[in-house]
Amino acid sequence: MAEGTYVEKSFERDTRYISDRITADGADGWPVEAGRYRLVAARACPWANRTIIVRRLLGLEPVLSMGLTGPTHDSDSWTFDLDPGQVDPVLGIPRIKDAYLTRFPDYPRGITVPAIVDIPTGGVVSNNFPDITHDMFFEWRQFHREGAPDLWPQAQREEMETVMKRIYTEVNNGVYRCGFAGEQNSYESAYERLFTALDWLEERLSGQRYLMGETITEADVRLFTTLVRFDPVYHGHFKCNRSKLTEMPALWGYARDLFQTPGFGDTVDFTQIKEHYYLVHRDVNPTGVVPAGPALGNWTSPHGREQLGGNAFGDGTPPGGVPEAERVPQANNPAIGADGLVQVTAA
Amino acid sequence: MAEGTYVEKSFERDTRYISDRITADGADGWPVEAGRYRLVAARACPWANRTIIVRRLLGLEPVLSMGLTGPTHDSDSWTFDLDPGQVDPVLGIPRIKDAYLTRFPDYPRGITVPAIVDIPTGGVVSNNFPDITHDMFFEWRQFHREGAPDLWPQAQREEMETVMKRIYTEVNNGVYRCGFAGEQNSYESAYERLFTALDWLEERLSGQRYLMGETITEADVRLFTTLVRFDPVYHGHFKCNRSKLTEMPALWGYARDLFQTPGFGDTVDFTQIKEHYYLVHRDVNPTGVVPAGPALGNWTSPHGREQLGGNAFGDGTPPGGVPEAERVPQANNPAIGADGLVQVTAA
Repeated sequence: MAEGTYVEKSFERDTRYISDRITADGADGWPVEAGRYRLVAARACPWANRTIIVRRLLGLEPVLSMGLTGPTHDSDSWTFDLDPGQVDPVLGIPRIKDAYLTRFPDYPRGITVPAIVDIPTGGVVSNNFPDITHDMFFEWRQFHREGAPDLWPQAQREEMETVMKRIYTEVNNGVYRCGFAGEQNSYESAYERLFTALDWLEERLSGQRYLMGETITEADVRLFTTLVRFDPVYHGHFKCNRSKLTEMPALWGYARDLFQTPGFGDTVDFTQIKEHYYLVHRDVNPTGVVPAGPALGNWTSPHGREQLGGNAFGDGTPPGGVPEAERVPQANNPAIGADGLVQVTAA
Repeated sequence: MAEGTYVEKSFERDTRYISDRITADGADGWPVEAGRYRLVAARACPWANRTIIVRRLLGLEPVLSMGLTGPTHDSDSWTFDLDPGQVDPVLGIPRIKDAYLTRFPDYPRGITVPAIVDIPTGGVVSNNFPDITHDMFFEWRQFHREGAPDLWPQAQREEMETVMKRIYTEVNNGVYRCGFAGEQNSYESAYERLFTALDWLEERLSGQRYLMGETITEADVRLFTTLVRFDPVYHGHFKCNRSKLTEMPALWGYARDLFQTPGFGDTVDFTQIKEHYYLVHRDVNPTGVVPAGPALGNWTSPHGREQLGGNAFGDGTPPGGVPEAERVPQANNPAIGADGLVQVTAA
């Protein structure tokens, strides 16, 4: 995602997106169809990271291809600078902005990832990230792999929406509110809000393995992508520094538990994450120097969360190895093994 | 101190100081004399903090008065902006620069703290910080309080100089080398040097209570003033982020042990420390927003270092309460009690 604007020195996210839906019944004119769409994401971006995780948990790789931009973007667009010739091999474009302009020649708003592109026409169908993961679950059901987890358990739906809303406003967005505060008062309010919410989560996760209880849900995906960036980026760069994630025992155990679960840690590229924030936000980090820390070896240490019971995939099963073309390089995430999965330290 | 200059995008400290000595025999024309000199320091500055600690450990308060500048300085000088009328009550000047100019009207170099000023003439005698604490010990002996510690034990002098030299180049200065690196390569070299030295110290302090063994020395004073700033400033602001101090067990125990020793933690003003770095270095922190973290309550937690044996003051005794005019406000260091001393949490 690109990040939004300042309103009276406080940060507010621009939440006006292209909101077409890809559905099983094709009601918006975009029917679910194998091979027709391409998910464009950036490993660096927490909002895009959600879609990478959900696609993998549900096993949508064979039917929904994925293009990955590089970690940095200019004021204009995220770009496919990691691809051969710096062009996405399927869409044939150097910038995701091109797919926005194909859809709307005068597109006036932020050029963001994730975006889903209609391959035949080359235009963006949706960049509304909450819809994208929601619809991957509810609309793409016919293509889910065998053993895919129930990320939206009906019996918990109401509570889950409440939990996800608080996580979104206070945590996912809360770290940005701290980091982009232009003056002391708005920063301090943002810091209080963030850590109040983290204290609530620390408490909630002290007694149960996952946010909604015994199994992973969409809510866990949404919290994970912020937690995994917390110490590498938000703690220092965004001044979210009451403590590190490693100093909040339940949250740190929970984050490692998910990291070590297939579909989560194997999507994380720490190098790209750090490069994104520290290189793009020159107003926060004028030199563009990217910190060498934190040490990452502890992400695979035993988390002890098994004692809380539960089972990530419920009656389902974990996803298998990562397709070779989609593996995070070990240099960018030291936990990654030869099969592209996180290698867990023996307890 | 003011911080120095960039040489080919790497940081180099300007170490040319006014190097007159105040001695017992008055060889330089500056004899030790009760009431004649004034130490000018800033609580924010690690180099000045050394002198505040040593003055207190040795009990020189009655014979060597102290003026304190505010935490921030402009490009011109540290200023007495915390004093009534924003003027030092003894020297009658608003800026320490004035005392430099009184001594040398064309003084061409950095206006730094600590500085010792000759009260009768109003001119700076020395701003050479290693000399200042050395001479407080060796030259001001006749004024040391009863029970003052032996900060320079003769039998260990040679090893102590080696240890202090490495701490100076690799740690005290090493954090600045990280933070002021203008580009990635010089930063990464600086980071490696710093953490190599911290690993050496972690190892050294795992088996012994203080740097030179059983009792505190000048070497501990010099390391302490960097460690106490590590998590509040250097970890985030200077990107010294392989880990926090709290994640290096021996160093963290050692730092808390000293912090809880009279003469150390009671000189620490966390608020001024953070304000100094985050407000002055706008090239590193353009908004000037000062982080609200880290949480500081853990500085008074039990450190367990007693089991290594040793005794901070050897055959001597700790200094008593802090003179009322020199107490750090509890708002700026939550560990400070009504007597100005650090209140230790019961083990």
